[in-house]
Amino acid sequence: MYEGVVQDLIDELGRLPGVGPKSAQRIAFHLLQADEPDVRRLAETLLQVKARVRFCSICFNVSEDDTCRICRDPRRDPTALCVVEEYKDVVAIERTREFKGRYHVLGGAISPIDGIGPDQLRIRELLTRLSDGAITEIILATDPNLEGEATATYLTRLMRDLGLRITRLASGLPVGGDLEYADEVTLGRAFSGRRAAE
Amino acid sequence: MYEGVVQDLIDELGRLPGVGPKSAQRIAFHLLQADEPDVRRLAETLLQVKARVRFCSICFNVSEDDTCRICRDPRRDPTALCVVEEYKDVVAIERTREFKGRYHVLGGAISPIDGIGPDQLRIRELLTRLSDGAITEIILATDPNLEGEATATYLTRLMRDLGLRITRLASGLPVGGDLEYADEVTLGRAFSGRRAAE
Repeated sequence: MYEGVVQDLIDELGRLPGVGPKSAQRIAFHLLQADEPDVRRLAETLLQVKARVRFCSICFNVSEDDTCRICRDPRRDPTALCVVEEYKDVVAIERTREFKGRYHVLGGAISPIDGIGPDQLRIRELLTRLSDGAITEIILATDPNLEGEATATYLTRLMRDLGLRITRLASGLPVGGDLEYADEVTLGRAFSGRRAAE
Repeated sequence: MYEGVVQDLIDELGRLPGVGPKSAQRIAFHLLQADEPDVRRLAETLLQVKARVRFCSICFNVSEDDTCRICRDPRRDPTALCVVEEYKDVVAIERTREFKGRYHVLGGAISPIDGIGPDQLRIRELLTRLSDGAITEIILATDPNLEGEATATYLTRLMRDLGLRITRLASGLPVGGDLEYADEVTLGRAFSGRRAAE
């Protein structure tokens, strides 16, 4: 329907997650009218990301160097390791400023439906990191959903006899949320995980 | 918060219309994991659009050549001219297959608040097109909002004495809509523009 390359752009944009046909069209029209240097900057940033971003050789966090900022930082506690599914989980936990240890990014969660088993995740690399005994605490920070729970359970069993302190993130009501709108599983977890009032 | 170039990408994506910070982050993570050729293709399409797309020298429609497909098409009626605000309006009208004439893209609508007056639109070019007398009918297809109506009224006055048939698109209830949910202006227009039942 559109002139060749405009349609190409709409098609390319429509492949991005969360960008439907209407949004793709709106973005394409915006870019058609945008200044050439702005569009060039976006295009070059895309290429830069693919050229420069790699994964940390220790923790598989996103990095522009062989090792990521967190693995390189000598102030981080080398005894505590937080296991997450994805890079964005690292960023989310870093934002809380609660954790001073290091990370291990699995690259996903166990999901038989999607054909992802333990071998597709960086679990072998995790066990290698544990082999020198420097790490004494593991925090399993996988997503609180079916796949994340399955992954955490699998890892707990795998590491059970290594003499580590293994913990999971607390489940419960989200802060600022309404009790009445919480789903029953969350509310049930909040009950079973109740703490002494201070 | 993110590694340099990842944050750059999130920032660039966040400047696109309708892409909030969360979407920008989601798209950036998707691109981080996408195959390099896919990302390269998106980047190159962006550059291609800026390099190849220009505006038709006759009607200011988007075109990859000096004149657009519609202006070049000898089967299009040279006596009817549909005046629209933007390129996407051409596409919307083409999709209806109701109109066999040619277009004139104004490049926007009169909007004093945004500093857009008649001089910022391609009105002089429109009058030039009318000068040889080949065009005998003008359809004003500006948006049915304040700016579009103001533009249509301005153009109607401007062309009043040129001996043209000047029409506007019909206002009324959208097909498939619910009468009870129509706003009062639309419903009022539907009343005042009522036609004999067939």
